[in-house]
Amino acid sequence: MNKLKLTEKIFEKQSFLCVGLDPDLKKFPSSVLKENDPIFYFNKKIIDATKDLCVSYKLNLAFYEKHGLKGMESFKKTLEYIPKDFFVIADAKRGDILNTSQMYADAFYDNFNFDAVTLSPYMGGDCIRPFFRNGKWSIVLIATSNPSAEDFQMLKTENGIPLYMEVLEKSKTWGTSEDMMFVVGGTKPDVIKKVRQNAKDFFLLIPGLGHQGGNLSEICKYGFNDQVGVLVNCSRSILYVGKGDDFAEASRLEAKKIQKEMSTYLS
Amino acid sequence: MNKLKLTEKIFEKQSFLCVGLDPDLKKFPSSVLKENDPIFYFNKKIIDATKDLCVSYKLNLAFYEKHGLKGMESFKKTLEYIPKDFFVIADAKRGDILNTSQMYADAFYDNFNFDAVTLSPYMGGDCIRPFFRNGKWSIVLIATSNPSAEDFQMLKTENGIPLYMEVLEKSKTWGTSEDMMFVVGGTKPDVIKKVRQNAKDFFLLIPGLGHQGGNLSEICKYGFNDQVGVLVNCSRSILYVGKGDDFAEASRLEAKKIQKEMSTYLS
Repeated sequence: MNKLKLTEKIFEKQSFLCVGLDPDLKKFPSSVLKENDPIFYFNKKIIDATKDLCVSYKLNLAFYEKHGLKGMESFKKTLEYIPKDFFVIADAKRGDILNTSQMYADAFYDNFNFDAVTLSPYMGGDCIRPFFRNGKWSIVLIATSNPSAEDFQMLKTENGIPLYMEVLEKSKTWGTSEDMMFVVGGTKPDVIKKVRQNAKDFFLLIPGLGHQGGNLSEICKYGFNDQVGVLVNCSRSILYVGKGDDFAEASRLEAKKIQKEMSTYLS
Repeated sequence: MNKLKLTEKIFEKQSFLCVGLDPDLKKFPSSVLKENDPIFYFNKKIIDATKDLCVSYKLNLAFYEKHGLKGMESFKKTLEYIPKDFFVIADAKRGDILNTSQMYADAFYDNFNFDAVTLSPYMGGDCIRPFFRNGKWSIVLIATSNPSAEDFQMLKTENGIPLYMEVLEKSKTWGTSEDMMFVVGGTKPDVIKKVRQNAKDFFLLIPGLGHQGGNLSEICKYGFNDQVGVLVNCSRSILYVGKGDDFAEASRLEAKKIQKEMSTYLS
């Protein structure tokens, strides 16, 4: 899905919500655990309940890899179940030497037909370049929402700027706003602002709303560009808001609440 | 496998070689492609041909994920085929927020029983800590062997040291030399020297010998500590040295040559 199409979808659905499908058996209602494939069953229910409220789904690989081959079967089934007109992200945080990143790109694009993959930049441009393909997106970690993001991302370099800004500036030499997005944590409005100032045309993928404490109004205030340019991801706060058999309905209500707030910022 | 045991193995086998199992169908002899499970068949032959010459095997996840569920089946069979007394590394370069890294740790330790996982440090300590478990090892990327490692790892911080040294110093606060190793590219002797000076007791995992141009004599000169403390990985230069049906024999000869040179540095 290209940038124009994604932007059109956002206005059409009045939503820039990405629902993160991070299935955690420990948080599933007990009735779900009795299903033949609990992960796929849970995801299916969540997709059915949210698909008119979001434009994107993000699958976090770790939650499937944890369950070995069986988990990867649920992963595949989930991916096949998502309707074609969604922007689908492999949240994989991959990044390795050239010949290896090439293999990962094949894995996510050829085997699974994702639109985008999240990538860790520590090893530099070699690791990112193989993920640029016609119609596909590299989503590079810039400033993440977790507490220990401070360990290195906020370190100042001898150029007097934090490492995350060095990563942003270098990343812009690898791709364009038509094939690259940036991850910026929703818990840091000042960082969102700084990234937006230096990456005007790029989409930002912003996690951290809900469970991690980000605030949607601030995210929009600092993150929006003149074409919106923001996808906000919610995982736990939507998936596990309900504890009973009506969990999908509870998730829908939570997603609806977020979408409604989003629509006010879009108008 | 603990540090003492790994060191004993190194002296017993007179080898600190880690063979990287990076199966690439495009490089397989045509006879291998006719097998029912070419990847497992190839790996099995390589393991049989090298197991008396190395102490460790490293499986690069990308080369299996590329082939989807079928690839992961070959991965599992390969892992089960490796004899119990090897130090087995998941070369995965993972790293994500706490709850996600926890899932990856479960994936590699519970599902697959690896001794160690390679980890990317960009997101900081949260991402590494879940990988510390009794008897398991976190292998943190410090300075990699690929050309674009320069993009960020070599950037000087305002403390006047390169980023990779910041990562090294911070990493040492997360674990000990009994549960953490560091990746340092074999192509940079000066970097190996500097890392060794600042991480005296830690094992270094050094890729980049062979295909990428590293030199074993220099690696040992700068990388050894008083208990050896080095694993040198070779993948392509061993796996694909032979092109015909006798490929495993050719791989054995190459591994034997390396092990013989290693034995001279051990004595």
